[in-house]
Amino acid sequence: MQRIRQRLAKYSLWEHLLGLWFSRNFTQHGIIVVTGRQPFPKVINRGGDIYVGNCQFYEGVRFEIGKKAVLQIGNGTYLNRNTVVVAQKRVDIGKDCLIAWDVVIMDSDLHPIAGKIMEDKPVVIEDNVWIGCRTIILKGVRIGKGAIIAAGSVVTKDVPASTIAAGVPARIIATSPAAILQKENPEQS
Amino acid sequence: MQRIRQRLAKYSLWEHLLGLWFSRNFTQHGIIVVTGRQPFPKVINRGGDIYVGNCQFYEGVRFEIGKKAVLQIGNGTYLNRNTVVVAQKRVDIGKDCLIAWDVVIMDSDLHPIAGKIMEDKPVVIEDNVWIGCRTIILKGVRIGKGAIIAAGSVVTKDVPASTIAAGVPARIIATSPAAILQKENPEQS
Amino acid sequence: MQRIRQRLAKYSLWEHLLGLWFSRNFTQHGIIVVTGRQPFPKVINRGGDIYVGNCQFYEGVRFEIGKKAVLQIGNGTYLNRNTVVVAQKRVDIGKDCLIAWDVVIMDSDLHPIAGKIMEDKPVVIEDNVWIGCRTIILKGVRIGKGAIIAAGSVVTKDVPASTIAAGVPARIIATSPAAILQKENPEQS
Repeated sequence: MQRIRQRLAKYSLWEHLLGLWFSRNFTQHGIIVVTGRQPFPKVINRGGDIYVGNCQFYEGVRFEIGKKAVLQIGNGTYLNRNTVVVAQKRVDIGKDCLIAWDVVIMDSDLHPIAGKIMEDKPVVIEDNVWIGCRTIILKGVRIGKGAIIAAGSVVTKDVPASTIAAGVPARIIATSPAAILQKENPEQS
Repeated sequence: MQRIRQRLAKYSLWEHLLGLWFSRNFTQHGIIVVTGRQPFPKVINRGGDIYVGNCQFYEGVRFEIGKKAVLQIGNGTYLNRNTVVVAQKRVDIGKDCLIAWDVVIMDSDLHPIAGKIMEDKPVVIEDNVWIGCRTIILKGVRIGKGAIIAAGSVVTKDVPASTIAAGVPARIIATSPAAILQKENPEQS
Repeated sequence: MQRIRQRLAKYSLWEHLLGLWFSRNFTQHGIIVVTGRQPFPKVINRGGDIYVGNCQFYEGVRFEIGKKAVLQIGNGTYLNRNTVVVAQKRVDIGKDCLIAWDVVIMDSDLHPIAGKIMEDKPVVIEDNVWIGCRTIILKGVRIGKGAIIAAGSVVTKDVPASTIAAGVPARIIATSPAAILQKENPEQS
């Protein structure tokens, strides 16, 4: 916690003020900073709850939260520019995740006949996950701790912890170097 | 027609005014609404024709129309934010299509030596088609009635009616639930 | 050189003025024009060098240059809107390349534990290469002279000269028509 606060201390007053403004409609939140200007991050909340820890967001980040839906983001995670999260049911993003730009995370197909057939399914992204730019994470997916998703992937199925997934649809291509590093330097986060 | 007018009546005055502004260079058009602000939808018309029915567009939609090219969009269709349509020859989009954000539809490779070899080929998207976010539809493609294109696909060949296509390049992966629903509830549109 | 200067003469005063502004932090540059308005192209230079010839850029182009990194772009090349180049080590783009919109070119994985394991590797794009929209070019890739990369590809390995590559990951699918044309009209550039 103290480590995160120290890290957040390095951001400018302006980034903290934008963060305060962005977090004004969150149900509960830690220290939020917003880096970059136009377009400002946007929340479209149709009656759900947003719980965010100490996090950094970049310009153009967008949350679309459905009625009674829940979006939860852990401490130390950042979402880079233009990343979109659509939560119609529930999206959980863990701690210390690095989410690149132009990423889309959706737990829904967003289609009007969403009833019986096009049901929404929660998305879970565990701690220390890295998601490359332009990736799309689709409904029902769970990405395990320390996994890496390569740039430009479309993730349609679960990705096990400490693996690297790539492609459309994403397939496991290797073991995550983060996993290797963690063994070598177990004191690192 | 009355159903569509009723649906359009639920939009704000502002959305109708933006729609009037956006449609000022269309050859012929119905009731147009524009939802969202920055960046405003944009038309780059180099001497073609644009025929649009009663439609909704979001911010950042962009039409690039070549000389003598034709873009036609049917009633009840919407194009979500930042979707780009490039018509150098002809692009037809049917009625009640749902086209998500960041989609690209092109009937041309847009290359300067476009002469004999890189010829433009019309794109046809039939009625009730759903196109997922970040999809790219390339020249010469016909997407059949009620088909669904999954998010992040690149469509290089025809997609038959009532199927679901996904991947790069897109392949048929299932029968469309819209087709199933239509059989179950034949009175639905 | 004269041909390029003639071509650049067709741009508006405004495009030249924007080009001057955009190039103010380049180490060395030719005639730069910027077409389009919002968002203005952006350079984030953390201590590297940018060498650009006579080139055209569109709105939203973004360069992220790391410490001691080098970005080099040859005469006659254009980068269309929202294209991002990340150079942590070195990115070379040749002459007369046509780079479409929403392209990402990175020589790095941009991850914090980038040390021993996630090393940066230079990207080389040779002369007369065409890159389709929404393509991602990853670290260590060399794209040979006259090659074409289809829209929506993710390029993870070298692409030989005068071929067409497509897909995620990109694979060779044909010989480039540019190569054919060059044989037919050897006097063309």
